[in-house]
Amino acid sequence: MVRAQLPSLLLFCFYGLSHGAYEPTWASLDSRPLPGWYDGAKVGIFLHWGVFSVPSFGSEWFWSHWQAAHSPKYVEFMEKNYRPGFTYADFAPEFTAEFFEPEEWASVFNASGARYVVLTSKHHEGFTLWPSRYSWNWNSLDVGPKRDLVGDLAKALRSKTPGIHFGLYHSLYEWFHPLYLQDKKNNFTTNDFVVTKTMPELYELVNTYEPEVIWSDGDWDAHDTYWNSTGFLAWLFNDSPVKDTVVVNDRWGRGIPCHHGSYYTCTDHYNPGVLQPHKWENCMTLDKHSWGYRRNAHATDYISIHQLITELAQTISCGGNVLVNVGPTHDGRLPPIMEERLRQLGSWLDVNGEAVYDSVPWKHQNDTVAPGVWGLPRRGDLVYGIALSWPKDSLMTLVRSYQHHTPHITMWDTMRTTAGAEYKATRSGMQIVFPPMAEVKSQWAWVLVMAGVTPAST
Amino acid sequence: MVRAQLPSLLLFCFYGLSHGAYEPTWASLDSRPLPGWYDGAKVGIFLHWGVFSVPSFGSEWFWSHWQAAHSPKYVEFMEKNYRPGFTYADFAPEFTAEFFEPEEWASVFNASGARYVVLTSKHHEGFTLWPSRYSWNWNSLDVGPKRDLVGDLAKALRSKTPGIHFGLYHSLYEWFHPLYLQDKKNNFTTNDFVVTKTMPELYELVNTYEPEVIWSDGDWDAHDTYWNSTGFLAWLFNDSPVKDTVVVNDRWGRGIPCHHGSYYTCTDHYNPGVLQPHKWENCMTLDKHSWGYRRNAHATDYISIHQLITELAQTISCGGNVLVNVGPTHDGRLPPIMEERLRQLGSWLDVNGEAVYDSVPWKHQNDTVAPGVWGLPRRGDLVYGIALSWPKDSLMTLVRSYQHHTPHITMWDTMRTTAGAEYKATRSGMQIVFPPMAEVKSQWAWVLVMAGVTPAST
Amino acid sequence: MVRAQLPSLLLFCFYGLSHGAYEPTWASLDSRPLPGWYDGAKVGIFLHWGVFSVPSFGSEWFWSHWQAAHSPKYVEFMEKNYRPGFTYADFAPEFTAEFFEPEEWASVFNASGARYVVLTSKHHEGFTLWPSRYSWNWNSLDVGPKRDLVGDLAKALRSKTPGIHFGLYHSLYEWFHPLYLQDKKNNFTTNDFVVTKTMPELYELVNTYEPEVIWSDGDWDAHDTYWNSTGFLAWLFNDSPVKDTVVVNDRWGRGIPCHHGSYYTCTDHYNPGVLQPHKWENCMTLDKHSWGYRRNAHATDYISIHQLITELAQTISCGGNVLVNVGPTHDGRLPPIMEERLRQLGSWLDVNGEAVYDSVPWKHQNDTVAPGVWGLPRRGDLVYGIALSWPKDSLMTLVRSYQHHTPHITMWDTMRTTAGAEYKATRSGMQIVFPPMAEVKSQWAWVLVMAGVTPAST
Amino acid sequence: MVRAQLPSLLLFCFYGLSHGAYEPTWASLDSRPLPGWYDGAKVGIFLHWGVFSVPSFGSEWFWSHWQAAHSPKYVEFMEKNYRPGFTYADFAPEFTAEFFEPEEWASVFNASGARYVVLTSKHHEGFTLWPSRYSWNWNSLDVGPKRDLVGDLAKALRSKTPGIHFGLYHSLYEWFHPLYLQDKKNNFTTNDFVVTKTMPELYELVNTYEPEVIWSDGDWDAHDTYWNSTGFLAWLFNDSPVKDTVVVNDRWGRGIPCHHGSYYTCTDHYNPGVLQPHKWENCMTLDKHSWGYRRNAHATDYISIHQLITELAQTISCGGNVLVNVGPTHDGRLPPIMEERLRQLGSWLDVNGEAVYDSVPWKHQNDTVAPGVWGLPRRGDLVYGIALSWPKDSLMTLVRSYQHHTPHITMWDTMRTTAGAEYKATRSGMQIVFPPMAEVKSQWAWVLVMAGVTPAST
Repeated sequence: MVRAQLPSLLLFCFYGLSHGAYEPTWASLDSRPLPGWYDGAKVGIFLHWGVFSVPSFGSEWFWSHWQAAHSPKYVEFMEKNYRPGFTYADFAPEFTAEFFEPEEWASVFNASGARYVVLTSKHHEGFTLWPSRYSWNWNSLDVGPKRDLVGDLAKALRSKTPGIHFGLYHSLYEWFHPLYLQDKKNNFTTNDFVVTKTMPELYELVNTYEPEVIWSDGDWDAHDTYWNSTGFLAWLFNDSPVKDTVVVNDRWGRGIPCHHGSYYTCTDHYNPGVLQPHKWENCMTLDKHSWGYRRNAHATDYISIHQLITELAQTISCGGNVLVNVGPTHDGRLPPIMEERLRQLGSWLDVNGEAVYDSVPWKHQNDTVAPGVWGLPRRGDLVYGIALSWPKDSLMTLVRSYQHHTPHITMWDTMRTTAGAEYKATRSGMQIVFPPMAEVKSQWAWVLVMAGVTPAST
Repeated sequence: MVRAQLPSLLLFCFYGLSHGAYEPTWASLDSRPLPGWYDGAKVGIFLHWGVFSVPSFGSEWFWSHWQAAHSPKYVEFMEKNYRPGFTYADFAPEFTAEFFEPEEWASVFNASGARYVVLTSKHHEGFTLWPSRYSWNWNSLDVGPKRDLVGDLAKALRSKTPGIHFGLYHSLYEWFHPLYLQDKKNNFTTNDFVVTKTMPELYELVNTYEPEVIWSDGDWDAHDTYWNSTGFLAWLFNDSPVKDTVVVNDRWGRGIPCHHGSYYTCTDHYNPGVLQPHKWENCMTLDKHSWGYRRNAHATDYISIHQLITELAQTISCGGNVLVNVGPTHDGRLPPIMEERLRQLGSWLDVNGEAVYDSVPWKHQNDTVAPGVWGLPRRGDLVYGIALSWPKDSLMTLVRSYQHHTPHITMWDTMRTTAGAEYKATRSGMQIVFPPMAEVKSQWAWVLVMAGVTPAST
Repeated sequence: MVRAQLPSLLLFCFYGLSHGAYEPTWASLDSRPLPGWYDGAKVGIFLHWGVFSVPSFGSEWFWSHWQAAHSPKYVEFMEKNYRPGFTYADFAPEFTAEFFEPEEWASVFNASGARYVVLTSKHHEGFTLWPSRYSWNWNSLDVGPKRDLVGDLAKALRSKTPGIHFGLYHSLYEWFHPLYLQDKKNNFTTNDFVVTKTMPELYELVNTYEPEVIWSDGDWDAHDTYWNSTGFLAWLFNDSPVKDTVVVNDRWGRGIPCHHGSYYTCTDHYNPGVLQPHKWENCMTLDKHSWGYRRNAHATDYISIHQLITELAQTISCGGNVLVNVGPTHDGRLPPIMEERLRQLGSWLDVNGEAVYDSVPWKHQNDTVAPGVWGLPRRGDLVYGIALSWPKDSLMTLVRSYQHHTPHITMWDTMRTTAGAEYKATRSGMQIVFPPMAEVKSQWAWVLVMAGVTPAST
Repeated sequence: MVRAQLPSLLLFCFYGLSHGAYEPTWASLDSRPLPGWYDGAKVGIFLHWGVFSVPSFGSEWFWSHWQAAHSPKYVEFMEKNYRPGFTYADFAPEFTAEFFEPEEWASVFNASGARYVVLTSKHHEGFTLWPSRYSWNWNSLDVGPKRDLVGDLAKALRSKTPGIHFGLYHSLYEWFHPLYLQDKKNNFTTNDFVVTKTMPELYELVNTYEPEVIWSDGDWDAHDTYWNSTGFLAWLFNDSPVKDTVVVNDRWGRGIPCHHGSYYTCTDHYNPGVLQPHKWENCMTLDKHSWGYRRNAHATDYISIHQLITELAQTISCGGNVLVNVGPTHDGRLPPIMEERLRQLGSWLDVNGEAVYDSVPWKHQNDTVAPGVWGLPRRGDLVYGIALSWPKDSLMTLVRSYQHHTPHITMWDTMRTTAGAEYKATRSGMQIVFPPMAEVKSQWAWVLVMAGVTPAST
């Protein structure tokens, strides 16, 4: 009776905004080919940054552990160090980011060999790292950094490291948003939160920053119908400014992960160990116990460079990308020990990147008798094996790669200077003699390059 | 195409929620009689409290003066006292309210003689003094006081001072809300702000706290059609829990003030000096220069108790109520000099309240030859004159109240113990001899009580 | 054996620095005449300002109540509002004084009619309001205000209100100074604290700021021999830059108050009610319960202007000066309700000051049958009586001032315009008829002027 | 004249407190033998911790660079990030140390292989990490950590890692102490600062914590006579609780460094490269540019573990100890990248420590034709050579160690499992064939063990 004017921000909910190839159904959306850049990139960097970087204690789930689960460790931390009544929102002004120099970050990411970067535009806390119209006074321009962190990083990456693709993590749910909690209480029969918060901010994010990855998360409480996921993705793939290059993960509603999306993440730290039929990603952390920066982490809580390269080898050999997580500090720094790991990774990729980027998994992912050899991804006619340890007596026997025809085998980082590693076929497989270690440039892992290999089973 | 589910919070915008006597038109709404309690109350207390109480500098318009107008005084204050990049939102954690004891406030308000209290539930800054679902992390429970200030005061007043009605000020616009700014930029052809912010929060406010005054403000940029004012008021008058007793002021859209509403406020400090045909209210301040608490106010910036009683006399004689504004501090105190004024007012009303509460304006509001006499409101057969100064030689001549028949004249605060003031008719009017001052209880102003008076002009 | 160089700061302890008229004995020091300005001044203002003005809770003894006495009220205040481990020193950075404008203070003090001002240069907390070399990082230039508060106020008073004398309060002991506590533990057989802290800072203070009052305090734990009091005073009276005009109080060691010093203070709020043989001072507070600013004071905790004038009348009639205490805020303001009291006092002194300044007590201080009349100080041939209430029926009978000869009696604030009050001798005394109250300028108290009065008993 | 009582704290300045073997002259003090533990320890850890760890910007000279030198980098940092008037003292409350767990530090230091730890008890800023009676409100118990940091670390080391000696750094001068500045202005003809501050606190420090190293600093402005250095050292060596085991460095006054003291430090990062006649120490930093923690350090600003071992090898081969500096954070953590370096060092010492601890320099410190070989310290009949790089083709020729008799040569970390490295005498020296690298446990550097070696030149 009263009025008929429809709020502009809701238009997309009632009218189909997209009129392109894809319909808002998973069948249609899944038919879209994976944009080529993503599979070849292999290595990305994940950044978990937000208000949780201020307490930087425990993990990025600080708020939830403290005030939803009432975990004693968090409750005590607050009781001991803050005045009574201090709220999570009170941390926001201390998210100062005064040392944040996005061009320097870009330089480090570039040195790491990563080909894409995914920043938490908004984690479950709801604080947006861009000045969202839909998150007033709870975003990085209004409080704390007083900067558009998303925009500043996007700009730096695009101008300084054009080879690196820029992507954004986005949490659908927000632990403590009153409208979300109300919808949830209503068993998701209402959707005020999605209509007035999630959807508008996702459109705003894509239109403003044109991310090439949308790494959705926080979907598990509700079905994709509540989240309007397919509606959004249809627009994203049909009409958005990144419709040709964007990739999305699989976290779009209960039951969706591991089943729909440009690529699958399934669970955190997903690393199945066997070749997957669909493109996937292993998102993993340098700090074993947290995604966000954690002041109470010790040196021994960080994985070693050898462990990092192991993850990389396992992942790409099974068809995945590795997304290496870094937790910046509240004042805008990449912690030096993380920077060091990234630079170590980069130094390894400088030597061995040819075996990594744009490689395609071979039919075998590891060798029955040489458990320390992973990878064996293929590139053109070559097969690469990544040896994660130097074999005893410098002798390695491979079974999988054996066949009657003589392959040409060499070691990647010596191949330009020597005639290759020595090898010989034996009854039990192919025996490879590693060159003197002192002549090898790589540390931590070594790439074998095999040409002309066709395994017996082929 | 995609979805048909309508967000629950928007229902009221599209369907008429009210089915009672009043239609959402001003003609219909204006036909509602003024609830009786309001006219008889005469004296209310206005409370301006919010994040602006933290800087407590200049006025409650601090944010706007600083960051919209860039007034040098405010810019310099910030540059001198705060770190670069300090934002208005950074003040919120310092809004601590640790000394806020609502029952003590209630006790002071009661001592002042006020019959209603109006608190800024939300000023133009948008910070809500209650935990609104529509103002997450920008309300008094999430940051700052960590209390439901609206609820706590309502509860204290209702339990401790049942004679005092509880009302709420509410600003329609918010200086810096991004959705409001966007609607404004669109010349108010969109209304995202009203639909997702203003309306839901007004419904929430009324349903939760049942205020008996809604003191709307911040309406001037847009017409009432943008604000959905008549739609809201129809619900308020037909269906809300306060439909029988609530009064509203007149600030509901451009062109509405002084034309529609339960009572008119017209402009701040409105005090027309002549009898008004429609109920009105003089909202005025103890601090001459600010509604919010202002640390940089000096003793001389506060009106004296004599000035306050003068405002009261003028206002009630012309048919208005006086709404005396107090600015509490960031830590929850009523500044002592303001408390003192309220207590002085109360001590005067203790003696003279009979002439104030429930009185009705007489046909004359002041006297041609006795400029210091105001009021002359009427109660039953009596006419009251409020003398704001003691006449020279204790002799006062009144013209307006003269007639041939002999009235009975006395002075209110001596009438119970003496036979009344002496008086006699003279050529120029009626001459009244005041009693010896030393025998009078009142300070500051004195009430004459005239029985049997019919002015010549009647 | 090792070294013979004597620390320069200790020289005064071992060698007599003063070679003037006074020896470091009380007998000699007490022989010094009281500088004339002090007795005539009658009204001074006391300022308690320091780090205690930051919590501004309870009283200026906050630190001691909290951490020495562990008073529950203070302990709870801290537990409720501050993080665990918050120390008193942590308050210092919040002592911001951003609104401190010494010239404005001077203007208010001038309006109050006061003739001297005494500021707490250092209270028992040890924080110096000047940049003392002996209180590094615990003074107002290094932390908090970042100003020389003593110097700034001295300069403003001397340039703007030359009629006001500038004095300094100084606490000998410091509750928590480790060297003091050590000396105390040694039963004051050691004096490291006095030698390295108290003495150097007192010399520094006098030489730098030339105060005309030294209001010593915090002496009670130890004897004057520990404090080196007579040594210091001998220098002060013989050789210091203020040797001719300085006055000191009596708090210079256990047993000294009320026995030695330029004037006596005896105890706080000392008001003996009978004429004293030695010059004394009534130091009293506007806030009944605290010397320092107290946020949790209510309007009713401040004495009224009538009470203030009563104190004044009683005090000067008995030979004392009144030192009216004000507690400025942490941000440098005089609280408006205190400013108002000072201005009210000033307005009374504007009319009646002639009866106050430079007056001399008469032999009677009050009247047997007129308890509300105090004062009766004398000036030349006149005797003044201060009536603190208006007599019933405007008739007052005085006994003390009666004699056979006819005096000339008038009321101070009408004496220039009328022939005086009416009076007549009766059997029981002298009956005075007050003029019509409405013709009198004063509020709160009225001065009777009697010429030619010689009491019967003389 | 006035008083004769001598302040107790000054007694030691006037009377010789020590009556033992050593007189307060350098000749006498230098005659004291170096306590044995120190030379054998070889590796110590230096900790620079203080209020400078709060800004943790630039270096531990922050205050001086900012407010004495007015270095633009520091001035801008403050202007950009802090409110006007923010002083250095305002940083102190933020020195929170909430993560400081001294037993965990002890565990890391133990894992590093260090045999002593030296903590900055007080740096040039004057802030004491223990509750000094002579630094009230400017120490770690009164503000900031609210803990006795010196005491807590001493206790943890002594109870958890008894093999590690505890030492204390102490700065004689304080950049901004007003008494120091006054003495300096007086060309050090006065010594108030030394008498009332430096001396008492040094005695307090030694008596309370019994440090086995006193690492003096900040001496350069004045001569040792001003500092009373020999007086203090005579007491330390004769009478103090650590007289038998304490070692002191050489920074005790202008002209003293490199000439007097238990061992010499000469300059920061002193690493002369040739054998020294007197015991010395190379104090060096993991962060190339700062001793204090520096937030704005990048991974590349830290020396690598290879560089660290290089410093160690060079230093011990020339008779020095290495003191590896770590800068803890304001919240009490050892930065993980520094912890990692310490653990890497420890892992190397686990294998090669036998060649390091208690070794004695040989007559040669390096080899003319093998520049990458350092050390050659001696232990009993063995000579150790530390090869800092793996020789090309695994062949190394040494000249220095050549002689006609056949030595027994092996590589330390393989000596237990193999018959030793192959070697043969050649015309140009002795040629050593390194074992296959893959069989060697050490990374970064390798220890050769030579038995029966007598160089030609001997």
